[in-house]
Amino acid sequence: MNPASDENPITENRTARLEAFSDGVFSIAVTLLVFNIAVPRDLPPDKPLIDALLELWPSYFAYLVSFLTIGVMWINHHNLFKIINRTDHTLLVLNVLLMLMVTFVNFPTAVLGAYIKQPDTPTAAGLLSGTYFITAVIYNLLWRYASYNRRLIDDRADQAVVDAITRAYRYGPLMYLVAFLLAFVSTPLSVLCNFGLAVFYALPNTANLFGGD
Amino acid sequence: MNPASDENPITENRTARLEAFSDGVFSIAVTLLVFNIAVPRDLPPDKPLIDALLELWPSYFAYLVSFLTIGVMWINHHNLFKIINRTDHTLLVLNVLLMLMVTFVNFPTAVLGAYIKQPDTPTAAGLLSGTYFITAVIYNLLWRYASYNRRLIDDRADQAVVDAITRAYRYGPLMYLVAFLLAFVSTPLSVLCNFGLAVFYALPNTANLFGGD
Amino acid sequence: MNPASDENPITENRTARLEAFSDGVFSIAVTLLVFNIAVPRDLPPDKPLIDALLELWPSYFAYLVSFLTIGVMWINHHNLFKIINRTDHTLLVLNVLLMLMVTFVNFPTAVLGAYIKQPDTPTAAGLLSGTYFITAVIYNLLWRYASYNRRLIDDRADQAVVDAITRAYRYGPLMYLVAFLLAFVSTPLSVLCNFGLAVFYALPNTANLFGGD
Amino acid sequence: MNPASDENPITENRTARLEAFSDGVFSIAVTLLVFNIAVPRDLPPDKPLIDALLELWPSYFAYLVSFLTIGVMWINHHNLFKIINRTDHTLLVLNVLLMLMVTFVNFPTAVLGAYIKQPDTPTAAGLLSGTYFITAVIYNLLWRYASYNRRLIDDRADQAVVDAITRAYRYGPLMYLVAFLLAFVSTPLSVLCNFGLAVFYALPNTANLFGGD
Repeated sequence: MNPASDENPITENRTARLEAFSDGVFSIAVTLLVFNIAVPRDLPPDKPLIDALLELWPSYFAYLVSFLTIGVMWINHHNLFKIINRTDHTLLVLNVLLMLMVTFVNFPTAVLGAYIKQPDTPTAAGLLSGTYFITAVIYNLLWRYASYNRRLIDDRADQAVVDAITRAYRYGPLMYLVAFLLAFVSTPLSVLCNFGLAVFYALPNTANLFGGD
Repeated sequence: MNPASDENPITENRTARLEAFSDGVFSIAVTLLVFNIAVPRDLPPDKPLIDALLELWPSYFAYLVSFLTIGVMWINHHNLFKIINRTDHTLLVLNVLLMLMVTFVNFPTAVLGAYIKQPDTPTAAGLLSGTYFITAVIYNLLWRYASYNRRLIDDRADQAVVDAITRAYRYGPLMYLVAFLLAFVSTPLSVLCNFGLAVFYALPNTANLFGGD
Repeated sequence: MNPASDENPITENRTARLEAFSDGVFSIAVTLLVFNIAVPRDLPPDKPLIDALLELWPSYFAYLVSFLTIGVMWINHHNLFKIINRTDHTLLVLNVLLMLMVTFVNFPTAVLGAYIKQPDTPTAAGLLSGTYFITAVIYNLLWRYASYNRRLIDDRADQAVVDAITRAYRYGPLMYLVAFLLAFVSTPLSVLCNFGLAVFYALPNTANLFGGD
Repeated sequence: MNPASDENPITENRTARLEAFSDGVFSIAVTLLVFNIAVPRDLPPDKPLIDALLELWPSYFAYLVSFLTIGVMWINHHNLFKIINRTDHTLLVLNVLLMLMVTFVNFPTAVLGAYIKQPDTPTAAGLLSGTYFITAVIYNLLWRYASYNRRLIDDRADQAVVDAITRAYRYGPLMYLVAFLLAFVSTPLSVLCNFGLAVFYALPNTANLFGGD
């Protein structure tokens, strides 16, 4: 499709559709997470619904962790594309790969919800952290590609801001790698680590120090 | 992500992507509600389809209540972001939490559809009203944060309008708390209360008096 | 929510979010239709997959009819909001009701796919046509409300165009009422009538003569 | 619908809603692909979760192929509508048909994931390639319609660019026809052909030579 490519001076807002497509994927990916919480059915007559609902806590917790993590990723995407103001074929492809990972998060979330109370939890927790890790790596690739020599950066953006993001992004993959490795030591610790990372990046002050994945 | 934050003067329409993401979540959340109505299958040969369809009334009703409630929430969001015209990290996070609740509504709706004809209804009705209650609280937090000292309010917005919204929003959590408590007295009354609140806020004239959650 | 209502002169593009929310609902509603086609599972060993796929023709057909019908509805919505350029609380509520119907189409589509080969087809075909009928009625209400005394119409729109739409929209509910009544005479005829209406409105030339919902 | 049609000079950005609706469909269609990967349930006690997850490779692979293919289609759509800057009723209808095919991809993807390890694979692989083939044909129809005599092309677009796209688009249907025919010779080859086409079009340099479907 590149004959009609981005060196074409026609379009003014060059990242509008990339943002619309990504907003669509982010919003659907988070919304569908709720379907990993299964409505309890066919309860034995002596079991109250409230007990069945409370037993679903691993699903609620997996929902919360994944919703917050994708939510924080969306905030990141939102902030990055304030200073990226052009696209090219490579950026579009990197963004499609990023969306592939964001979408995929639904699967490990469902697996974690199903297996968190069983002996196989390390596998489930590792799958979730591993997915986050790869996502953080692709986020870094996308940002490095866009910011290298200010390739796709808005002329009005301060270079100090660009450098600060580059530094901050380094920590994302590292932290999710730690969460991944923790899965094989202690599952609750690994899941809490993922939860903590989402909360940490959502906090207003600390986010200024490190940025996020 | 905040190194590329909102004090950055680059972007003109600062709430555009927050609105696009939220419109995505709202539209998906309402659309998916229809999947809580299960197609009747494996009917006994002497049972006409029309009877099986009519027996699904609790699912239709739960669909109607939740669709209208989320629809009214979307109208609120639409109206609020006419006078909020800037974002910051905290507002983005509060909006992600609001979307978490909007999305979650699907689960209590499915539970209510499944248990409305059973003795456990109080739990199901309470779960739905409780979800609405927490949503109304987060709506208030978001608005209070944005409107405090006109932090993120459009300069052209009349302070009297801002104050009127603040006053009106106080009633939302209160009314859903009443619906929550009613669940343990009379389930139909609690569900009707939720339905009444959605209809009430959808009516053109009364909405001017109280606003909504 | 009306304290921050539409008489507020702040926002320039007053229908932008209504369109974004509606585009979201339309696009999700059509996309989810595909999930009413169930992947054949647990085939007997002597039955080739191709036969199982061909036996799904009622599901393909229901998918096609509903996709085209919702697609034509979207084209209508797109064209209407070219000449409606303001919103008020009542229009937002009418649009939420319209979206409720667009979304609900998924349920009768699934029912039709499941029962088209059984004796109960009249009920299933009637449910689909009835849903389309109510949708067409709400489309008319929305348009009448917006166009009455040019309440929400763009000043630049020609009154002859407004009148032509009003005349054309009259036929929609009537035609779907015919399809609804046909369901109790001959199911295939009713379904073909719905299909024919979608194709008819999709044709470029005839659409100019009648318009339609 | 057409009384309020596109010869109407009111609207400035004439393709905005077509793009919004399409971005919605594309983003939902890719996001829902992940639900074709089923969470393993009811494992025998001696079977580790990791084994069950690894056995799902056909689902992962079908997910990857379809995500990349729809992703590349989105990139194409994005690039085409940079130089198409007007709509008419026929283009809207052709775009609705294109979205019908994009959405439908979910079904053959689920079928391929379910049957790739069984003797019936040729049917499943043929269904997927056949779906891509028809999609590529409709893409060509849409582009030919829009570009014929520069019917809906931006005045500022270079004719050489328009001609280059027309030439490049010829190859899409041909290549997917080859993948379709390969399904009946060797299934893995056919699936790899689809995968190769998606990767090929995603590569920055080669894409300039051939464009894509």
